[in-house]
Amino acid sequence: MSYLVYPGAHHTRFHHAIGCVHLMQQVVNVLRFKDVTISKEEEEALYIAILLHDIGHGPFSHAMEHSIVNGVSHEQISLLFMEQLNTEFNGSLTLAIKIFKGEYNRNFLYQLISGQLDMDRADYLKRDSFYTGVAEGNISSERLITMLNVVDDNLVVEEKGIYSVEKFIVARRLMYWQVYLHKTSLVAEQLLIRVLKRAKELTNNGVQLQASNALKFFLDNEISIKDFDIATLELFSKLDDYDIVSAMKEWQNHEDFVLRHLCEMIINRTLLKIKVKKKAIKKESLESHINALIETYTISRSEAEYFVFTGCISNQAYHLKNQNINILHKSGKIQDIVKASDQLNLKALSKRVTKYYMCYPKQSF
Amino acid sequence: MSYLVYPGAHHTRFHHAIGCVHLMQQVVNVLRFKDVTISKEEEEALYIAILLHDIGHGPFSHAMEHSIVNGVSHEQISLLFMEQLNTEFNGSLTLAIKIFKGEYNRNFLYQLISGQLDMDRADYLKRDSFYTGVAEGNISSERLITMLNVVDDNLVVEEKGIYSVEKFIVARRLMYWQVYLHKTSLVAEQLLIRVLKRAKELTNNGVQLQASNALKFFLDNEISIKDFDIATLELFSKLDDYDIVSAMKEWQNHEDFVLRHLCEMIINRTLLKIKVKKKAIKKESLESHINALIETYTISRSEAEYFVFTGCISNQAYHLKNQNINILHKSGKIQDIVKASDQLNLKALSKRVTKYYMCYPKQSF
Amino acid sequence: MSYLVYPGAHHTRFHHAIGCVHLMQQVVNVLRFKDVTISKEEEEALYIAILLHDIGHGPFSHAMEHSIVNGVSHEQISLLFMEQLNTEFNGSLTLAIKIFKGEYNRNFLYQLISGQLDMDRADYLKRDSFYTGVAEGNISSERLITMLNVVDDNLVVEEKGIYSVEKFIVARRLMYWQVYLHKTSLVAEQLLIRVLKRAKELTNNGVQLQASNALKFFLDNEISIKDFDIATLELFSKLDDYDIVSAMKEWQNHEDFVLRHLCEMIINRTLLKIKVKKKAIKKESLESHINALIETYTISRSEAEYFVFTGCISNQAYHLKNQNINILHKSGKIQDIVKASDQLNLKALSKRVTKYYMCYPKQSF
Amino acid sequence: MSYLVYPGAHHTRFHHAIGCVHLMQQVVNVLRFKDVTISKEEEEALYIAILLHDIGHGPFSHAMEHSIVNGVSHEQISLLFMEQLNTEFNGSLTLAIKIFKGEYNRNFLYQLISGQLDMDRADYLKRDSFYTGVAEGNISSERLITMLNVVDDNLVVEEKGIYSVEKFIVARRLMYWQVYLHKTSLVAEQLLIRVLKRAKELTNNGVQLQASNALKFFLDNEISIKDFDIATLELFSKLDDYDIVSAMKEWQNHEDFVLRHLCEMIINRTLLKIKVKKKAIKKESLESHINALIETYTISRSEAEYFVFTGCISNQAYHLKNQNINILHKSGKIQDIVKASDQLNLKALSKRVTKYYMCYPKQSF
Repeated sequence: MSYLVYPGAHHTRFHHAIGCVHLMQQVVNVLRFKDVTISKEEEEALYIAILLHDIGHGPFSHAMEHSIVNGVSHEQISLLFMEQLNTEFNGSLTLAIKIFKGEYNRNFLYQLISGQLDMDRADYLKRDSFYTGVAEGNISSERLITMLNVVDDNLVVEEKGIYSVEKFIVARRLMYWQVYLHKTSLVAEQLLIRVLKRAKELTNNGVQLQASNALKFFLDNEISIKDFDIATLELFSKLDDYDIVSAMKEWQNHEDFVLRHLCEMIINRTLLKIKVKKKAIKKESLESHINALIETYTISRSEAEYFVFTGCISNQAYHLKNQNINILHKSGKIQDIVKASDQLNLKALSKRVTKYYMCYPKQSF
Repeated sequence: MSYLVYPGAHHTRFHHAIGCVHLMQQVVNVLRFKDVTISKEEEEALYIAILLHDIGHGPFSHAMEHSIVNGVSHEQISLLFMEQLNTEFNGSLTLAIKIFKGEYNRNFLYQLISGQLDMDRADYLKRDSFYTGVAEGNISSERLITMLNVVDDNLVVEEKGIYSVEKFIVARRLMYWQVYLHKTSLVAEQLLIRVLKRAKELTNNGVQLQASNALKFFLDNEISIKDFDIATLELFSKLDDYDIVSAMKEWQNHEDFVLRHLCEMIINRTLLKIKVKKKAIKKESLESHINALIETYTISRSEAEYFVFTGCISNQAYHLKNQNINILHKSGKIQDIVKASDQLNLKALSKRVTKYYMCYPKQSF
Repeated sequence: MSYLVYPGAHHTRFHHAIGCVHLMQQVVNVLRFKDVTISKEEEEALYIAILLHDIGHGPFSHAMEHSIVNGVSHEQISLLFMEQLNTEFNGSLTLAIKIFKGEYNRNFLYQLISGQLDMDRADYLKRDSFYTGVAEGNISSERLITMLNVVDDNLVVEEKGIYSVEKFIVARRLMYWQVYLHKTSLVAEQLLIRVLKRAKELTNNGVQLQASNALKFFLDNEISIKDFDIATLELFSKLDDYDIVSAMKEWQNHEDFVLRHLCEMIINRTLLKIKVKKKAIKKESLESHINALIETYTISRSEAEYFVFTGCISNQAYHLKNQNINILHKSGKIQDIVKASDQLNLKALSKRVTKYYMCYPKQSF
Repeated sequence: MSYLVYPGAHHTRFHHAIGCVHLMQQVVNVLRFKDVTISKEEEEALYIAILLHDIGHGPFSHAMEHSIVNGVSHEQISLLFMEQLNTEFNGSLTLAIKIFKGEYNRNFLYQLISGQLDMDRADYLKRDSFYTGVAEGNISSERLITMLNVVDDNLVVEEKGIYSVEKFIVARRLMYWQVYLHKTSLVAEQLLIRVLKRAKELTNNGVQLQASNALKFFLDNEISIKDFDIATLELFSKLDDYDIVSAMKEWQNHEDFVLRHLCEMIINRTLLKIKVKKKAIKKESLESHINALIETYTISRSEAEYFVFTGCISNQAYHLKNQNINILHKSGKIQDIVKASDQLNLKALSKRVTKYYMCYPKQSF
C-alpha cells in the first residue's frame, strides 16, 4: 500500500526475488574467495531457497494473513510451494528446503536466508529506498557483502565493516518508521484487512459477492494450514492484486454500508484519519468516535467498529538475543556488534520502540 | 505490455502526467527568463493541458482503440474529459482546452503540448528509458529545455542545442524499435486486441462473460464518439488494468476455444511466435500456418485467423513537413534542423521505415 | 590526500564552494516558504559568506596550518580575504562578514554558515561520499533542508525529519573514520607536515631549496597573524597544490636525507607503516623503532623522529553542548534531538572517541 | 583543458586506464561465453596492452606533441615504455606489444585495443560524459560489449545491437563538438602550445627560465624519436601537470612580453576571443588584428602572431574505409553498419566535417 504515500513504489515481488538471487551470487563468490567451502549443491540450494523464500506471500500479504488465510503464515505457505515443487522436480529442492527450515548442518547458509544480515533485507532495503525515493534508507549491499566471512559456521562481518553495519541498522530503522509503518499506508492496510473480514462475514451470512473464482473460494471456505492441499495451493497461487482490487472496485457499489464504504475509502484514497501517540490511546476517546458514528448513520456498534479502532506498531532496530551480528576482529576475536562498536549507540537501538494509533472517520463519508 | 520484456517497466500514466507538468514548469521559467511573455492564465492553462493530455487513455490504450472503443481516439476522449471538468470547474479550463485543440492564437503554447519537441516526449522518453533499463534511450530533457526559445510565435532551439536535438531524435528512434515496437510486446498487444474483439463477438452472440460492470458495458454496447455522454464517460473512467487483466484471468477457463487460448497466452506469457521482415510477408507462408491450425484443432478458418496473422509496424524518426524543429542561429536566422545540421544524417532519418511481421503458434498450445 | 586511498577523490574546493551556495539558495526558498523573513540583503550576505567561508584554506590546508603558517587558522585567513574584498567592493561584504563572525543579531543565519547542520557539512558529506565511492556516507541534503525551520531565531528541524538527522549524524561519523581519518591519508598528511617543517628548518639554516616564489616567501619568513598584510595575503593566494607538489618532486633529489626521503614517500606512495590502537602507544615501542633507524642510517635522533612518531585522532559524532540540533514538535515544543529521539542512541554518540597511532618505516627506505 | 569549461572534469588518465581494463575483462567474459577461444596468455596480454596504451601521453599531451616533443607521437612513446618494461619484466610483455602494434596473427585482439569500437573509446566517452555533465554523450558500454562477437577473426556486433552502435556514433560526434573541440578549451590548448614554443625559443636564445629539472631538459634539448633513450624516457616519465602549470605560474612574471601574457591568459582564464566559422577565415580579417596589436604594443609581427592566429578543427563521426564496424546478422551474413542500418543516416555521418577558427585578443591585455 506504500504507493499511496510514495507513488513511485510500484516495484514487484518478482523484482525482489531476482534481486535476492543476484546478491546471493555475490555472497557465494566473496565467501569462496575467502576459502569458505560451498559445494555446487549448496550453492544451487541457496539460490533456490532465496528465490522462493517469499513465494507464499499472497497479494497484500500482511492483510491476507489477518483475514483470508487466518493463522497461516506466508512462511508456511512458501514451504508448501517448495515441497510441491520438490515433488514435481524429483527431489531437487530437498537441500534448499532443509536450509530454508534451518535444519541443514551448516548454520551460516541459513543465516544468509534468514538472519539480521540476510540477502532478503540486503535487497529490500535498497530496493524500497530506491523506488520510494527515501534516499536515506539506501544501504551499500555490495560493501556489506564484501565484508562477510564465516567463522565456526557462523556468518560474521570483518572489523572494517563495522560502520557499514551500524549504518545498515540505522537505515533499516528509518525505513520502518518512514515507509513500512508510515501512517497512511498503515490506515490503508487496516482498511483492507477489514474489507476482507467483512466480505467473509457477508459470505458466511449467504450474501452474494462478485469476485474472481479464486477469491470466492477463500471467502466461501475457512482455510487453516491442514486444509492446504494441492488444489487449495493451486487456487492460492492464482490470487494476485488483480483479484483483490477488482473485487473492491465492484464492492464499492454493494448495498452493505460497511463493505461499500470501506472499499470506497481505499479505491478513492479517502482514508480514515489516524493519530499516532507514544502512549496507549484512552478508551474515552475511542468511545466518543464510535458513538458519534452510531448516531449519525444509525448503524450497529459492531458496524461502527469497522471505522473506529486502535492498535499499536513497534520496531526493534537490532535484536540482541536473536541471530545477532558478530564482528570478526583482525586478531581473530569474535564479538557481538553491540560490544565491538566504539560507542554504545547500538545498545540503545536494541530496545523495542512501540507506538499507538487510533483511526476514525473524517467529518463524513 | 513492455513489462513482459523489461520487467522493470511498472511505471504508470500518473507518473508521466506529473513528470510532464514538472518539465512544463521548467519551460515556463526558461522562456520567461528569455523575455517571452507568458501570462499567469496561460501558465495555468499550459499545466492543465499537459496534466490532462493523456487522460483519455483507457487501460492498454492502443489495444482498446482497436477493439472496445472502435474508432474513438484517446485524444477525443481526453477532450471530452476536459470539457466535462470545465463544466464542473465553471469554465476554468477554457483556455487549456483552446491550447490543447490548437485553437489559441499563440502557436508555441500548442507546440509545447503537441509537437516534435513537446513535454510529452521529453518526459516519456527519459522515463521509459529509466524504467526499462534501455540506458541509450536516455535524453537530457533539462538541456533541451534550457535551449528552447520562441521566435515569431514558434518554438525554436538555440544553435548551441543542435547536437542535443539530433541525439534526441536518434534516441527516440532507438526507443521505438527497441521498446515500443519490441516484437514480444507487439505480439502481446496483438493478442490483447484479439481477446477484446473475441469477447465482444461472443457477447454479441449472447454468450455470458464474467467481467466488471464497467467492462461489461463496453462489451454489450457498440460505442462511437457520438454515444459518449456523461454516463459513458463515467463508466469509461472506471476502466483500468484491473478490469482487463481480471477478466482475462477468468476467461482462461472459458469454454470458447479462441478466447480461452488467447487469454492463457497472455496470462502465462506463452505468446505466439513472431517473425519480423523488411519485406511484406508472402501469402503462402500465412496460408500454410492457418491450414495447419484448422486441421490440428478442427476449428473454423475465422477462428484460426485469431492465431495466425500478419501486420506491419513503422516509424519515422523525424517529420519534415509536420511540426518541424527549427534552429535559431546566433545571427537570428531560423532554419529547419535538417538544413541547420552540419551533416545530412537527419534528412536520412526523415524517411519512414516500415517492417512486416507474421505471428503464428509454436508447436502446440 | 584522500585520493591516495580513494582514487576518484579529485574534486576541488571550488566545487564545494559552488555546491554550498546552491544548497543555501534552497534553504532560503524553504524558509521563506515557511514565512521566515529573510531580506534581499541578508540573502546576498548568506551567499557571499558561504561562498567565501573556505577561501582561507591554503593547499593541503590542514598540513599547512601545522607548518607553514603556524598558528594561523584558515578561518582567520578567510576573514582577512573577506575584509580585503570588502574594501575593494566598497563595503558590500559588511553584512556577510558580520554573519560569518557570528556578530549579526539574527543567530540562525550564522547557524546556516557554521553549526551542526550548516550548508558546509550538507555539501561536503554528500560530495565526498560521491567522489570517494563510500556510498554509505551519502546523506539526503534536500530532505534535510526541506525540514528546516526557524523558531526564536534558532534553526530547528521539524519533527518529521528526526530520522533524517539521526542518519546524517551516523553518516558523518562513518565518513570521519572511513575517509577523513583513514589511516593511509593520515600517514600521508603527517608526512607532508614534516616535509614542510623540514624545508623550513633547512631554509632557516641557509640551505637553498628550489621552490616557487610564493612558497619561498613562506619558507623564508616566519608569518604570524599580525604579519598578514595585503602583500602577504596576495602571495598566500598564489599558493596552490601545484606549488607544494612541484616542490616535493624536486626535493626528492635533494641531498638532505630527511627531506629527500619524506618527499619520495609521498610522491611514490611508499608511505610509512601505521598502527591504530584504542589505547595510547607505549613508549618502548616507539623507542625501539627510533633506535633502529638511528643505527641503520647513522642519523641523529631528531632526524629519526621525522620517520617515527605517535599521535591521536578523535571524533565526536554529536556535540551536546555546542550548537546542538533542535527538533520542533508539531505541538510547538522544541527539544534537543538527543531527547526528542525515541531511543538513546544519539546520547551514546555524543561521547568523544579517541584513537592512537604510531608511524614508522617499513623494512628499509 | 576541458575543466575550464566543465569544472567537474577533474578525472585523470589513471582512472581511464583502470576503466579500460575493467571493460576489457567484460569483453573477455562475453566472447568466451560465445565460444571465442582466448588463451590465458592472450587475456593477460590484452589487459597489459589496454592498461598501457596511453602511457606515452605526457601532461596536456596534445599540446606537448606540437611543441616540446615535436614530431614524436604518444603512441611511439607508449611503445618505448612497453619495451622498457618488457626488458625489466623479462619478456612478459612481448605478446602485449605484438597485439598493440597490430602484428599478432589474431586481428580482433588488436581491434579491441584500437578500432572504431575499442575499449579505449568505450571508456572515455562514458567517463568524459559523466565528469563533464554532458549527459547526452553517455553510452551504454555494457550493452555494446554484450553484443560483440568474432567472425573470421574480426570483431562484429550482433544485429540486435545495431541501434546501440548508431547511438554510440552519434554520441561520439556530440562529445567531439561539445567537449573535445569546445571553443574555450580549444583556445586554451592553442595558448599552451604557444607557451611551450615561446619557452623553447627563449631558452634557445639563452634566456633563463624557472622550471622543474625534467621540464628544463626538454626545453634545453631538441628531442626527436631517435634521442629517446632510457634516460630521456625516465625524465619524460617525471613530467606531469605539476611541472607545466607551476612553470606557467612563475612565467607570469617573466620579463618577456609574449611569455608573460600567454601564461597570464591561461592561469587567470582571461583567454583570447575565438570565432568559429564554416568557411576558411579571410586573410584581411587576420591582418587587421595583427596590425592593431603591433601598433598598440610596439611588438614585432612574429610576436603579435602569438596572439592572433587561425586554424581548423575537424571530425569524422564514422570512418567508412578504416576499421569499419561490421554487423552480424542472424543469418550469418556480415555487413558494414552503414549498409546494415535501415536508414542512410550513417552514410551521411561518414563525411568529414571541418570548421575554421580565428583567435585574437579582447580589447586589451
